[in-house]
Amino acid sequence: FLFSFPRSSAPGRLAGFGTLGEHGLVPRKAGAPWLVAGLAAGLAGVAAASLQHLARAEMVPRTEGASGVLGRADELALRCSSFMAQPVTALSELRARTGDMKTQMELLIMETQAQVCRALAQLDGGASFSVDRWERKEGGGGISCVLQDGHVFEKAGVSVSVVHGTLSEEATKQMRSRGKVLKTKNGQLAFSAMGVSSVIHPKNPHAPTFHFNYRYFEIEDADGNKQWWFGGGCDLTPTYLNQEDAVHFHKTLKDACDQHDPSLYPKFKKWCDDYFVIKHRGERRGIGGIFFDDLDSPSKEDVFHFVQSCARAVVPSYIPLVKKHCNDPFTPQEKQWQQLRRGRYVEFNLLYDRGTKFGLFTPGSRIESILMSLPLTARWEYMHAPSKNSKEAEILEVLHHPKDWVH
Amino acid sequence: FLFSFPRSSAPGRLAGFGTLGEHGLVPRKAGAPWLVAGLAAGLAGVAAASLQHLARAEMVPRTEGASGVLGRADELALRCSSFMAQPVTALSELRARTGDMKTQMELLIMETQAQVCRALAQLDGGASFSVDRWERKEGGGGISCVLQDGHVFEKAGVSVSVVHGTLSEEATKQMRSRGKVLKTKNGQLAFSAMGVSSVIHPKNPHAPTFHFNYRYFEIEDADGNKQWWFGGGCDLTPTYLNQEDAVHFHKTLKDACDQHDPSLYPKFKKWCDDYFVIKHRGERRGIGGIFFDDLDSPSKEDVFHFVQSCARAVVPSYIPLVKKHCNDPFTPQEKQWQQLRRGRYVEFNLLYDRGTKFGLFTPGSRIESILMSLPLTARWEYMHAPSKNSKEAEILEVLHHPKDWVH
Repeated sequence: FLFSFPRSSAPGRLAGFGTLGEHGLVPRKAGAPWLVAGLAAGLAGVAAASLQHLARAEMVPRTEGASGVLGRADELALRCSSFMAQPVTALSELRARTGDMKTQMELLIMETQAQVCRALAQLDGGASFSVDRWERKEGGGGISCVLQDGHVFEKAGVSVSVVHGTLSEEATKQMRSRGKVLKTKNGQLAFSAMGVSSVIHPKNPHAPTFHFNYRYFEIEDADGNKQWWFGGGCDLTPTYLNQEDAVHFHKTLKDACDQHDPSLYPKFKKWCDDYFVIKHRGERRGIGGIFFDDLDSPSKEDVFHFVQSCARAVVPSYIPLVKKHCNDPFTPQEKQWQQLRRGRYVEFNLLYDRGTKFGLFTPGSRIESILMSLPLTARWEYMHAPSKNSKEAEILEVLHHPKDWVH
Repeated sequence: FLFSFPRSSAPGRLAGFGTLGEHGLVPRKAGAPWLVAGLAAGLAGVAAASLQHLARAEMVPRTEGASGVLGRADELALRCSSFMAQPVTALSELRARTGDMKTQMELLIMETQAQVCRALAQLDGGASFSVDRWERKEGGGGISCVLQDGHVFEKAGVSVSVVHGTLSEEATKQMRSRGKVLKTKNGQLAFSAMGVSSVIHPKNPHAPTFHFNYRYFEIEDADGNKQWWFGGGCDLTPTYLNQEDAVHFHKTLKDACDQHDPSLYPKFKKWCDDYFVIKHRGERRGIGGIFFDDLDSPSKEDVFHFVQSCARAVVPSYIPLVKKHCNDPFTPQEKQWQQLRRGRYVEFNLLYDRGTKFGLFTPGSRIESILMSLPLTARWEYMHAPSKNSKEAEILEVLHHPKDWVH
C-alpha cells in the first residue's frame, strides 16, 4: 500500500535552529508527489524536502524556560536530550498531546534510533554518525543517521521519519486493496505515519548484517472514523552460519514477543521467513527474525507495548553478535563470500522490498535515505557455487530451508 | 511484453555431443513456466533447462559427410566452425531452411557472439571465456559465454538464445497491450525468438562499460498469419567522459544506420536516451547509443540487413576504446568512482531493465545468464556527491543532459 501526497511548490525549511549547513546533495524537485510505503526504506526516505545537515552539537535540545522547576514538560526535554536530533514534531506540540499514541510512538522511535546509534558508534570506535535532518513541506520530516566505513561497520544507517497530511484517492484505492474500506472527503484522507528503520553491515564476514523497522499509521476517514495499525520486524543476515548466534538472536526476539502473547513469535517468525525471500534464487536473504503488519488488536496500548518490547530488543539481540565476531580472523575467500552475499542483499532490496520500490518510484523521494540500506560494496560472480560440505554450502542450506532456532 | 511457456516435466539433454561435463550449478526445476522478455537479459537467460558445460575444444563442428566436396552444406559447416559452440538449431535443420529468416538470424547472432568473444579474449590476454550451453525442453536453448576477472575485463558476458514453442493466453494479452492483436488457437500462439546480448565491464576506470542486444521474433496466429519484428541496440557507460570516445562510438553507430536510412540514427539515439534512464536519480546510465523495438518495415530482408550492420558495428564501435584506455594510469579515487557508477548500473538493471525483470520473475529461468550483466563489484556510498567542476561532475552533467555527439 502507499500514500501519495499533493504537490506543493517550495521546499520547507527547518525553524528553530541557528546554523544549518546545507548538505552537498542537489535538492530534488520540491513538493512532488510523495509516498510512504509500509516498510522500512519507503518510510525512511520518501520526502519531498530540502535537505539539511546538522552537526551533532547543534542538536541537543536545551531545556526550555528558565524556571528550573522540573515538571512534565522538562521531563520530556530531558528525554529528548538523549536523541540524535530534536524530534521531528515540535516539543510544544508533543507536550500538548503527551497521552496521544503519535507522541508515544515518536518518542519510542527517536529513543530507539539513539540507543542503536550509541551502541553502534561505541562499538565501532572509528567513524561517527552523520546526522541528516530533512523536512517535508506538507507535514513532518525525518532524521537519517549513517555511519560509513568505520572500524567495525562498513555501513550502518538508522533513520526516523514522522510525516502527516492527506492521502490521495489513488492511495486510498491501494488501502482498499489491503482490505481496509475508507471513505474519502473530496478524494482525500487525513493520515499520520512514523517509523524507525535501519540496516547495519559490519565489515567482518563473521559478523552478521542486521535490519529492523518499527512503524505506526493513523488514518481518518470522511466520517471522522479513525483506523490505526502497527508494523515492523527485524531479520539477521549472516555470511556464515553460527548456530549459537542464530539461537541468541531468535531467543531474544521470542522473549520480547512472549512477554505479550506466546502465539506471536511463531506467527511473526514464519511471516518473516515468507517475506524476505529472493524469489528468483529460491532462497531467503538471511536466517529471519520477526515480521508483522496491520497489527491493530487487542488495543492500541497493547500493541504499542509489544512494539516497544521489540524495539528494546534490537540492541540486545544484535550488538552482542557483532561484539563477539568483529575481531574474528578471516581469509580473503571469506571476505569474498561476504561480498557475494551482499550482492544477494542488493537483489532483494532492489527487486522485492516493497518499501524500497515504492519509495524509489515516487518522484521527489529522498533517494539517499532509501538506498542507505544498500551495502558499501557488493559482488556478483557468474556461476558461483560453493563446494559440497563447505561453510558456504552450510549457510545456503539454511537459506533454502529455514530452521526453528528456539525449540 | 513477455512470452510464457507451458510446463513440462523433464530437463532436456543435448544430443550429438560426446563428453559433456555438467556445470556445478544445481539444476533448477525443469520445465517450469518460461518466458522471453523483449530485451537482452530476459532473452539471454530465461530457460527451463538442464545446464551443460562444453569445453571449447569439443565444440568445433566437424564437416559432416566424407565426400570432401564443398557444397552449400559444407559452407554452412565451415561458417559454424568459427562459432563459440554448435548453433542451437541442428545443422541439418539450418541446411533444410537456408533462405529462412530464422536461419539467417541464428547465424548472425552466433557469428556476432564469436566475433565479440574473440576480440575480447584477444584483448584481455588473461582469462578465457567459459562456454555454457543450455537446452530448453520445449524447444531451443542457448549458449552463454562469460570471461571473468581477466587482465583487461572485470566481467564480459555474451549470450545467445534461440527458442521456439507456444505462447500462453496470458502472454498473448501482453502482446495485445503492445498494440498487436493476435488470434489464438486454444489460447496458444506459435512463436520463435532469438537474440544475442552482452554486457562488458572493463577493469580500468577509463575504459567504458558496454552493452548490446539484437533480437528477432516470429509469431503465428490461429489463422496462420505471421508477424515478425526485430529489436535491439547498444549503449556505452563510461566512468569518465572522453569526448573523442563518445564521438567515435556514436559516429560508428550512425555510419551503420546511415547505410540504410539517414532517419534511423537520430530516432534510435533518442529512443536509447529515453530508455536507459535511472528514473529515481533522474540520470541516464551512460552516454547512450541506439535502441529500437518492433521494427517490421520496410521488409524483413531490409530490417535484417540493418540489424546485421548494427551487429557488425559492435566490435569497431567499442573495442578500440578499450584498447586505447586499458593501460591508462588511474588513482584509487578514480577506481572508487567507477565502483559507484557500477552501483548505478546495478540499480538500472534490477529496477528498470524489462528483460532482467521479466526474466527473474519467471520460475525456472536461467538466473546466471540473466544476471551475468551485473558487474563483478559495485559500491554504494551514502550522500556521495562529486565536487563542482570535477571530472566526476562532468560525466554526471552529461548523464543528466544527453548530448548530440555527431553534429
